[in-house]
Amino acid sequence: MAFTFQINDDVEFNHDKQLLKKADDNIPELAKRVVTPVQVVETVIDKNLLDNVGTKKVADATQLSQMKFGRDDRLILDFGNHYVGHFTIRIKSVGSPMDAPLTLKLKFAELPTELNQDSQDYQGWLSRSWMQEETVHLDELPANLYLPRRYSFRYVEIKVVDTSPKWQVSFFEPALIAESAAQGAPTPFHTDDKLLQKIDQVGLKTLADCMQDVFEDGPKRDRRLWIGDLRLQALADYQTYDNQTLIKRCLYLFGALAAKDGRIPANVFVKPTYTPDDTFLLDYSLFFVSILDDYFQHTDDYTVLEDLYPVAKKQIDYVMKNMVQSNGKIVFDEDYPVFVDWSNEFNKDTAGVAIIIYALKQFIHLSRLQRLDTIDYYQKELAQITNYAKQNLYNEERGLFISGPDHEINIASQVWMVLAQVMTPEENHQLMSNAVKKLFPIKGIATPYMYHHVTQALFEAGLTDAGIQLLKDYWGKMIELGADTFWEAFDPNDPSYSPYGSAMVNSYCHAWSCTPVYLMRKYLS
Amino acid sequence: MAFTFQINDDVEFNHDKQLLKKADDNIPELAKRVVTPVQVVETVIDKNLLDNVGTKKVADATQLSQMKFGRDDRLILDFGNHYVGHFTIRIKSVGSPMDAPLTLKLKFAELPTELNQDSQDYQGWLSRSWMQEETVHLDELPANLYLPRRYSFRYVEIKVVDTSPKWQVSFFEPALIAESAAQGAPTPFHTDDKLLQKIDQVGLKTLADCMQDVFEDGPKRDRRLWIGDLRLQALADYQTYDNQTLIKRCLYLFGALAAKDGRIPANVFVKPTYTPDDTFLLDYSLFFVSILDDYFQHTDDYTVLEDLYPVAKKQIDYVMKNMVQSNGKIVFDEDYPVFVDWSNEFNKDTAGVAIIIYALKQFIHLSRLQRLDTIDYYQKELAQITNYAKQNLYNEERGLFISGPDHEINIASQVWMVLAQVMTPEENHQLMSNAVKKLFPIKGIATPYMYHHVTQALFEAGLTDAGIQLLKDYWGKMIELGADTFWEAFDPNDPSYSPYGSAMVNSYCHAWSCTPVYLMRKYLS
Repeated sequence: MAFTFQINDDVEFNHDKQLLKKADDNIPELAKRVVTPVQVVETVIDKNLLDNVGTKKVADATQLSQMKFGRDDRLILDFGNHYVGHFTIRIKSVGSPMDAPLTLKLKFAELPTELNQDSQDYQGWLSRSWMQEETVHLDELPANLYLPRRYSFRYVEIKVVDTSPKWQVSFFEPALIAESAAQGAPTPFHTDDKLLQKIDQVGLKTLADCMQDVFEDGPKRDRRLWIGDLRLQALADYQTYDNQTLIKRCLYLFGALAAKDGRIPANVFVKPTYTPDDTFLLDYSLFFVSILDDYFQHTDDYTVLEDLYPVAKKQIDYVMKNMVQSNGKIVFDEDYPVFVDWSNEFNKDTAGVAIIIYALKQFIHLSRLQRLDTIDYYQKELAQITNYAKQNLYNEERGLFISGPDHEINIASQVWMVLAQVMTPEENHQLMSNAVKKLFPIKGIATPYMYHHVTQALFEAGLTDAGIQLLKDYWGKMIELGADTFWEAFDPNDPSYSPYGSAMVNSYCHAWSCTPVYLMRKYLS
Repeated sequence: MAFTFQINDDVEFNHDKQLLKKADDNIPELAKRVVTPVQVVETVIDKNLLDNVGTKKVADATQLSQMKFGRDDRLILDFGNHYVGHFTIRIKSVGSPMDAPLTLKLKFAELPTELNQDSQDYQGWLSRSWMQEETVHLDELPANLYLPRRYSFRYVEIKVVDTSPKWQVSFFEPALIAESAAQGAPTPFHTDDKLLQKIDQVGLKTLADCMQDVFEDGPKRDRRLWIGDLRLQALADYQTYDNQTLIKRCLYLFGALAAKDGRIPANVFVKPTYTPDDTFLLDYSLFFVSILDDYFQHTDDYTVLEDLYPVAKKQIDYVMKNMVQSNGKIVFDEDYPVFVDWSNEFNKDTAGVAIIIYALKQFIHLSRLQRLDTIDYYQKELAQITNYAKQNLYNEERGLFISGPDHEINIASQVWMVLAQVMTPEENHQLMSNAVKKLFPIKGIATPYMYHHVTQALFEAGLTDAGIQLLKDYWGKMIELGADTFWEAFDPNDPSYSPYGSAMVNSYCHAWSCTPVYLMRKYLS
């Protein structure tokens, strides 16, 4: 998640030291692994792959040290799979004494298409600083080049800006020191279906590469901890790597950094200091409740529950106090928008109502665990909101939920009403059947985040075959186009789509895209 | 000096450990000084200055910390004079939390014209790596940026490649840590002439900024120790900073790193290890003799003389053995060329003969100091070469020396014959008077190195006024065009000239250009 753009620089925040201390107590140790490239490649036209760019082997990695490079020469190393970590290489000069510095441009690419793009051409609105590129001057050779910044990549392009007419360079011992908080290799999802096997494998790699000091959003670029992604990563993690400590750390971070008015920001920065962002999204704040409930269900950890229940309560109370009318109608606030999906081309009110119901149910579960006598109040509120939704937002005739003043029918409303279990299982089945008939194939949605919720709603509503088909059509299509890890954004109708005005800053390993590993284990095992 | 292009990668070299140890014993301590910028400027059109580029103040340096910068903003700091050293600045973000790295491009410029050039356009043959530019990514702010490489500059341009739409940067506490082996401030050359005062001041700065771990050639780019430059720097140094230790160090370095055949290479590299270059120039090798003799005349240091006399002797003996015919005629070897000047548009034979005579005389002086009985042999050789030159290379009718098979008349032949004192003082006076009449204004010479020798020959021949006029016309013209230090290359008829196919890699603080400080003190005091 990185698309939302808000500036709220007048908001004041808490920094709860006790909770931050607990976040610190759960900093994960990163597993480090040295990876060497499998081959030297060049880019080629490949019509099957994203943007028609593929790679072709030009030499074994072992031949590298025999190769010599001068002005404008270009070398591409292929590490064989996606990794997150540091890059190192040894460099020496060959020929006359080194009578000028060596200048190199290094580019780190997750996909071959990035190798053929020139960052000079980037005019998108997202910061240019996200380009994974470095210009390095080496005044003395031989040298061990170790780049201090971390990158997310499979390919490294090294362009020799210049040596001098009197000498060239050769490279040897390139290596990647891969980092991840994911330990061990989870049991692969059991299936005979080759594509589902591959989807599982790519999903596991995606999750592992986003598991760092916190659950990152996308290690190429947006390394923050976002709530929406955390919720999905945590669900995937319980079923696979099961690093509960990392989830606990992230919960404490959000718990510690709420605004003075109680609301949890949509994301927090971890470096150089713990800093809450000034972006607020209603559904993201509410998902704190959901993540806490999911966590408790997997851990029975009453300490975390007691520490963070008050923070969760504030998210629910903020909505109850400010947004719920006496008849159960929700009145949204444009300064506290519902995210649901990047697209702003559909009305999000009904999906927002469903998410409030979804979170409120999990909150009541948490309250019940603590035998609190406030439960009655929240249950009444839940009933009222639910009744209002059923009576006013459901169109009997069409068998679908409507949203907003124009009674718009969109996929997000149906999906979230199913996930919030507003209707009976039979009604949900009918609702999603209607949705498949009338709203499929999905149009205008480019996030695996929204596709996740659609797929989950299909499974929840018992439309298992349709769920499997969507897994294959959507995540399978990324694999067909060359994905080693799942992408931040993907619209099957427009594979080169970017929300940023240029795909150069797209993240091709993104947390919220890893969820097939969760969906398959939960619904297909 | 950097223009000569030879590759001799089959030459074997000595590495005399005893002499290298003595070079190490004389490593200078660099004086370091913190300099802060005097103003923030922008570039403007100024028809008086080089390439019509000047600067205009836009703010006091003290106002900097109040300024904010975002994507594509550009800041130029002016340190008020030329320096060699490291740059540091503090940077913080202003606005929302820093949701992307900061990317900066920094450019270090000796003259305003460099600020208006784009290194992307450079297509010259000299290495692109000499561009004084860096691209820096800062993942976390606030930060203290300290660049580890050394630069030669007055101006620093900081271009903000990007922040993000949510925050900007501000800069504070910029500083330059200037470095030089020159200690103290020499007494200025005494004159009422404002231009000569200014020439002296700029010459002193040029020399000081080239005095580093060795006498450097040009700190922007060619940081090697070249013999031709060392000879002039040493002469200038005796009259000003008088850092004899540094000269001794440089003599030992050359002495230690001769080729197995005895010849001293034209330059040596100091980092990462002492490495002789594979370029050999006859006159440069011979100047080792000259530098040693000059050094002794200023120091009476018999230890250095005894250590290095054998190395000096090999330079002379190589010529005597391989290049002198029995009649005293010199036969040149194209693999061991005479440099004299960058230009290859004139015949260098006669200048080469004069330089052999010049060096041989100094060698005989060194031999006499040691009372060696080989003196007779060298004196006979000297007489024979001199006689041959007078009889065959001097054109009585025109009153000028001729050079090469086409009996070419050029300025270099006259100048070096005067400096070598081949003729009587009266004849020299006449020779240079003829030269001024027939060969002035000088054409096709772009090096202060050659202009130095022309000016010195005028002074030696008693044409003092003409010498002063040339000082003013040549070095004074650089000052008029904006020089804070004297330039590597300058052709008054074509001020933007570069020997490299692009002025972007020109060095505007260059050792061999500092010599007015020597010439004025020697001939005008």
